[in-house]
Order: sequence, then C-alpha cells, then structure tokens
Amino acid sequence: MSSNLKELIAANARYADDFGEKGGLAIPPARQIAILTCMDARLDPMGLGGLKVGDAHIIRNAGGRASDDAIRSLVISYKLLGTKEWFVIHHTDCGMETFDNDTMRGLLASSLDTASLGPDGWSDAGSGSGSYEADYIEWLTFSDNAQAVVDDVNRIRHHPLVPGRIPIYGYIYDVATGRLVEVPAATEAGKAV
Amino acid sequence: MSSNLKELIAANARYADDFGEKGGLAIPPARQIAILTCMDARLDPMGLGGLKVGDAHIIRNAGGRASDDAIRSLVISYKLLGTKEWFVIHHTDCGMETFDNDTMRGLLASSLDTASLGPDGWSDAGSGSGSYEADYIEWLTFSDNAQAVVDDVNRIRHHPLVPGRIPIYGYIYDVATGRLVEVPAATEAGKAV
Repeated sequence: MSSNLKELIAANARYADDFGEKGGLAIPPARQIAILTCMDARLDPMGLGGLKVGDAHIIRNAGGRASDDAIRSLVISYKLLGTKEWFVIHHTDCGMETFDNDTMRGLLASSLDTASLGPDGWSDAGSGSGSYEADYIEWLTFSDNAQAVVDDVNRIRHHPLVPGRIPIYGYIYDVATGRLVEVPAATEAGKAV
Repeated sequence: MSSNLKELIAANARYADDFGEKGGLAIPPARQIAILTCMDARLDPMGLGGLKVGDAHIIRNAGGRASDDAIRSLVISYKLLGTKEWFVIHHTDCGMETFDNDTMRGLLASSLDTASLGPDGWSDAGSGSGSYEADYIEWLTFSDNAQAVVDDVNRIRHHPLVPGRIPIYGYIYDVATGRLVEVPAATEAGKAV
C-alpha cells in the first residue's frame, strides 16, 4: 500500500469519526447551485465560494471546459436534482494555456509508442497505440482564458438540453490572491432568457 | 444579482482576505494524486481524504464515470503535471442509480419540446430540439455501483493513453458514514502493470 493511499485512508477514518450531521443530507444540492471548474489542485471550489457539504454540485475537468460530459452532468444536475444557477469558473495560471493539441499529440507520440521516459523518469510504454489515439482527442486547450470562459458559457447557454431560465455566471479565479474575478461578457452571454 | 451569487461573492472576499500561503502553490499536485469522483453535493473530496489545497487533481462528473472527458483530464494530469496514483471514488445513494437512458430521454422529451414544467415548476421550453439531442447522449447511469467502479477502473487501466505504471484504486464513499469502502475487484483491476 503506497504512503499516499495509507495517509488518505487514515485521514478518511478521522473524517468519518467526526462526520456529525453530514450523514443526514438530502441528494439535491441545498443551494441549488452547480459549478463547472478546473481539476487544478490549487482550487477548492467549496472553500473559495463559502459552500458547505451538501450545497452544490461541483463538476471538474481539465480547464473547466463545457465538454459534452460536463453538459451531460449539468443537464442531470438540473433535470433530476433541481439546480437553478450555474457557475463556470476558470482560473489564472491554468495548465491548459501552456500547450495545444499538437504539443500533447507530440508528447504522447514520442513516449507511449516507445520505452522513452515520461516527465518523472517513468517509461510510458503502453499498448503501443497511444500516439494514434491521441490524434483523435480534442484536448480543449485555450490561449485566451476570458474568451474560453465566454465560449464555455455560450456553449452551455445555447445547448438544446439547457433550459433558458437557468442563469450562467462566468468567472476567473485568481490562484495568487484567492479572488473570483467576473468575466462580464460571459455573465452577459449566460443571462437567463 | 441573485442571493446565491451575492453570498458566494461575499464569501469569496472573506476567503481571499485570509488566503495566506495558498497563493504560492505550484501547478503540479504536491502529492501527485488525481481523484475521479461524482459531482454529488454531499462529497467533499479534499475533506474526506485529508487533502490540502494544492495536493491533488480532482475530476468530477455525474457518477464519477470514466468518460472520454475524464480520461482526457487524467492523461493531462499525468503527462503534463506528473500525477502518479489515481483514485476512482463513487458513493452510496448516487442519483445515477435511480434512472437510465430511457428515463432521462423520456423526461427531456416530455418537457424541452413543450411548455410543460420541470421538477421545480419552471418551463423547460428551450430550443425545441431538446428531445432529439437527448436520444444521442449516453447518460452513463448504472444499476450496480461496485461493478460500475470496476468498469470505470478497467476502462482507464486499458486505455491506450494511460501508462501501465499508474496504480488506480477503486472505492465507494458512504454518504451516511463518511467512510471510504474499497472495491477490491476494482483495485485489483487497477494494479500497476
């Protein structure tokens, strides 16, 4: 058992011992909020928004992008569990601004098909078909973060399964200060109709 | 400005005022962990695992499923940001066990194309093409949660872009007790090769 796994399981035992009233929460988010944001380790979506366990659905992927899967989750969040306001929150210093599809495809092509080393000295040798697979994945990177928030809000706003009555707010979280900064064009695009 | 939005922004200002050393964190997750889990409001992935801001990538969607988008995020997590251990964490009392593709398509067909009411009395009337779109979405529901964890770990383990050296652990979080319960068949399937 790795030290990470040991520590995580031990921490979970302490968490459960002090679980208190959290055990009685209902499935629907108490504050009827859903947040789409990035998987970045520096983001604590509950903490940065003052949310408690049970308050909000939180959907996270690389970049906080409005992928098909994020939209699948948002539609379930609304339709089955009644969320009424959605937030798209990107953040400063995002890894998704540092590369593009070609970079990613190149990185994978140069490692997965061979015994060459990954960033940490590991061999990436896998099934041998890695680089081909990589060419068919849209990595959803971006160069203009504010525009990417606008694009994500627009995609959600205009998706045929998203009711016009749900407001969608667009923000960028500053990882250096902890502050949410509104992207007005995104909030404008996300207005309930 | 809605009360939810007002409260969230006010809470964020307090969070930023007390931001402390979190502003200096590096992009790569300090503990080289990535967690794939559900968007459920009752889950606090950092809290339940004793993780601090900066420790781990956290990817969340409806069900904590190994969707194409979750795999996009995991591959970026490893390849660009060096995570070395991955967790797939589902939870008890998951909404994804309560419906299937037909339920979801029926719900959407009966609402989005008409002025009928959603669960909260709203009209879902949207673009008018909602029900058609819904027929082409795989909602990734499941009836056997432990098997779904095994399936998700297996899909990640055998994906051509996932290095064999990354261990993948499978757990179910008990929302009534706060405890993580291992799914041994999933952890077995997720063993590094």
